Amino acid sequence: MKKNIQTLKGFRDFSTDKMRVRNSVIEKLRKVFELFGFCEIQTPSLEYKDILFGKYGEEAEKLIYAFKDRGGRDVGLRYDLTVPLARFMTTNKNIPLPFKRFQIQPVWRAENTQKGRYREIYQCDVDILGTSSPLSDAEIIAVIERALLELGFSDFKIKINSRQVLFSLMEKCGIKKNLWLAAIQSIDKLDKKQEVEVKEELERKSVSKNQIEDLFLKIPKASPDKNLKEIIELAKSLGVNKKSISFTPTLSRGLDYYTGVVFETVVEKPKIGSITGGGRYDNLLKDLGGPNLSAVGTSFGLDRICDVIEDNKLIKTDPTKTTVFISVLDKKNENYAGRIAKLFRKNGLNTELNLEPEENIRKQISYANKKEIPYVAIIGEDEASSQKVTLKDMQTGRQEKLTPKEVVERLVQ
Amino acid sequence: MKKNIQTLKGFRDFSTDKMRVRNSVIEKLRKVFELFGFCEIQTPSLEYKDILFGKYGEEAEKLIYAFKDRGGRDVGLRYDLTVPLARFMTTNKNIPLPFKRFQIQPVWRAENTQKGRYREIYQCDVDILGTSSPLSDAEIIAVIERALLELGFSDFKIKINSRQVLFSLMEKCGIKKNLWLAAIQSIDKLDKKQEVEVKEELERKSVSKNQIEDLFLKIPKASPDKNLKEIIELAKSLGVNKKSISFTPTLSRGLDYYTGVVFETVVEKPKIGSITGGGRYDNLLKDLGGPNLSAVGTSFGLDRICDVIEDNKLIKTDPTKTTVFISVLDKKNENYAGRIAKLFRKNGLNTELNLEPEENIRKQISYANKKEIPYVAIIGEDEASSQKVTLKDMQTGRQEKLTPKEVVERLVQ
Repeated sequence: MKKNIQTLKGFRDFSTDKMRVRNSVIEKLRKVFELFGFCEIQTPSLEYKDILFGKYGEEAEKLIYAFKDRGGRDVGLRYDLTVPLARFMTTNKNIPLPFKRFQIQPVWRAENTQKGRYREIYQCDVDILGTSSPLSDAEIIAVIERALLELGFSDFKIKINSRQVLFSLMEKCGIKKNLWLAAIQSIDKLDKKQEVEVKEELERKSVSKNQIEDLFLKIPKASPDKNLKEIIELAKSLGVNKKSISFTPTLSRGLDYYTGVVFETVVEKPKIGSITGGGRYDNLLKDLGGPNLSAVGTSFGLDRICDVIEDNKLIKTDPTKTTVFISVLDKKNENYAGRIAKLFRKNGLNTELNLEPEENIRKQISYANKKEIPYVAIIGEDEASSQKVTLKDMQTGRQEKLTPKEVVERLVQ
Repeated sequence: MKKNIQTLKGFRDFSTDKMRVRNSVIEKLRKVFELFGFCEIQTPSLEYKDILFGKYGEEAEKLIYAFKDRGGRDVGLRYDLTVPLARFMTTNKNIPLPFKRFQIQPVWRAENTQKGRYREIYQCDVDILGTSSPLSDAEIIAVIERALLELGFSDFKIKINSRQVLFSLMEKCGIKKNLWLAAIQSIDKLDKKQEVEVKEELERKSVSKNQIEDLFLKIPKASPDKNLKEIIELAKSLGVNKKSISFTPTLSRGLDYYTGVVFETVVEKPKIGSITGGGRYDNLLKDLGGPNLSAVGTSFGLDRICDVIEDNKLIKTDPTKTTVFISVLDKKNENYAGRIAKLFRKNGLNTELNLEPEENIRKQISYANKKEIPYVAIIGEDEASSQKVTLKDMQTGRQEKLTPKEVVERLVQ
C-alpha cells in the first residue's frame, strides 16, 4: 500500500494557482464561443474502442488508452473531441442543423513523456456541423482570432491551406492519387523535421525522386484556390484582421480525415508554436456510420495555452480569493468568532476562520500571510468582551479596533 | 467500424440544456466554497492501482476501472475524490495547513446500470485537512447548508452522527471491538434494507442475537456525545439553522476510513434522498503512506443534484444564450451580413449567422424558432441596398426596418 505514492508519469496535479488560470481561460473562451452562437456539450470519457480506432491513423492508435472493462467490452479513453462528436451526432439525431458546438474536456494520450508531454490534457473544440459553406469555414477562423485576442495574445498567425491546393500540386507533379494521403502525412512533418528527411520519407512511400523535387519547387509558388480566396474574404468581413491570416501551402495537418481547408495557429510572441489546429472533415461522420454531415472545426490546446498564460502572466489572477482571515486566540471565543464569520459571509466577504483557536497569534498571522490574505480580523479577550475585532491590514500593517459591522462596511466593495 | 455506434452502457452525453444546469450549479458552488475560504484543486483521472485499492472495502474495489497501461503499469480511474486528495497531500508537501480544498471532477464506477446508476459521475468534494478541531467539523456542516440553500433546496436535513456514538453503544452491548467496523457496514444499509435483513447480516458477521437486539433497543435512545454537541453548537454560531441538523444515531456511512463525525444530507422536497455524504477521516492520509493529517469533509453528488434541479426546474436557465440570428437570403449579401455579425459581436450581442445563404427564409426562421433565439435580423435585397436590416421580434412577430446600429442600441442592455 505504501509504494508508488506519486502521480503517474505524464500526469500532474492542478494546484489552486493553476486552477485559477484554467478557470479564467475557460470562462473567457466560453464567452467568446457564445458570442458566436456556439452551444456547449460534453461526452463520456470512455467510448467503444471500435469508435476510437481507425480514424486517427496507426501512430495515434498506439497512444490510445484501450482496455477491457469489467463487462468484457473493449473500451478506450477518448483521444480527442472530434471522434466523440461524430458519435454524439449519430446518437442525438434531433439536433437542429447546422449545429455549432463547443466542448471543453480532457483527452488521454499515452505520449512519450521524455518530450515533456502530458498524458492527460484539456482540450477545447469548436465545430460547425451540417453545412459545407465557405461562410462556416470563415466563422471558425473568426472565432479563433477573437478567442486568442480575448486571451491576451497579440502576435499570432492563423496559417491556412486547403487539401485541394496540395492535391492539385501533387496531380500536376504526376503523383498517383492513392499516394496523396500518405504524402500529406509526410509533408505535415516539415515544421518538425528537416526537408531532406521528409523527402526521404516520401521516397520510401514510393513517390519518385523527380516528383518530389518537382513538388518542392511548386509548393512555395502555390496560391490559394477560388474556395480558399472566398473563405479569406468572408473571414475579413467577419472582422478578422488580414495580418492574422497567413496562406501556408506547406500546411497539411497529418490526420486522414480532413477534406478541405486546414488551419493552425502559431503564436510568435511569446514564441510557443502551434496552439490551435483544425480543418474541414466532410466524410468523418458518415465513415463512422453516422449521418452524412459536412463539418469544420478547430481544437484549442487548452493545457498548453494555460501553461503559456501562467508562465507569461498574460491573465491577472488574484493571489487569493479570500478577503479576510478571522484570527481567534482563545477557544472560549469560538462562538463569537463563528458569528462574525457568519456576518462576513452573509455580506459576501470571502472569509476564512482560524480553526485551531489554541494556536498563537504569530502562527495565525504567518498562515494568512503565506496565503496572501489581505486582511486579518483578530479576536482576543478585549475584542470579545467589547464585541469588536482588531482589523489588521496585512499590506500596511495598520491595525484598528472596529465593530464587525464597521469591518463589513470597510471591506465590501 | 460501423457497429456499436452508441454510448457505452451507464454513460451519457451532456447536451446544451444539461450543460447549462451543470455550469450554473458549479458556478454557485464555487462561489459558496470561496466564501468559506476553500481553494480549488484538480487531480489526474488515472492513479496507480495501489493507491486506489484497499481503501474503500472489497465491494467498492469491484467497481473500480483498473487496467494495465501501455507501459505495463497497474492503473485505475479514480473512484472518488478523497483517495486522490490523500495522494495529493503526499505529493504536494509545501501547502500551508490547515488546507481547505474543493475539487469538482468526474469519478468512474462500474455500477449495476439496472439500478439506473451512471458509471461516470461528477462529484464535488470539500475538505479541511490538518486539524481535528470541532470547529472544522462545524465549518463543513455550515458550508453544506449554505451550498444547498444557494442551489435552491429549501427542505432538507443534514443528518449527523459520530462513529464514537455507535462504538460506545456496541461496547455497552458487549460486542467485540474487532467486529465494530464490520457491524457499521451492515448498520449503514438500514436506509435501503429492512431491519430484519440487517439483523441477519449482523448475525452472519458473528454478532450474537442478544447483542443485536440490545443494540437495536439502544440505538433509538442514543444522544449526541460531548464532541458532537460541541460541533452542533459551533455550527449554529456559524449560521446553521438548527432545523437543518438532525442527530441520527443509525447513521453510520459504510466506508472503513471514517473515524469521527459522519454526515449525510437528505432532501425532503423534492423527495430525492441523499445528495451529500462525508465525515471525519483522521487516519486515511497516514494509512496511505502520506503525512499524518487529520481530515474532515463531504462529497456532493453533483450529477444527482443537477438531475434533480433540471427535473424540478430549481434554477432558471435561459433557453438560449444567443440573442440574435442573422438571416441572409442571397449569397451576394454574405459580406454585408458578415460585417453586421462583426458589429453585433463587437457590442457583446451573442450572434448566430445563417451559414447557408441559399436557404429560404421560412427554413431560417424555423431554425431560429427551434433554438428559441429571441430576435432575427433579416437581410434581403432591400435591406442590403439601404444598408439596413429588418428586425423580427420572435415573440410578438413584430418587424421593423432599422440600421444595424439601431439594432445594437435596441438589443444591448
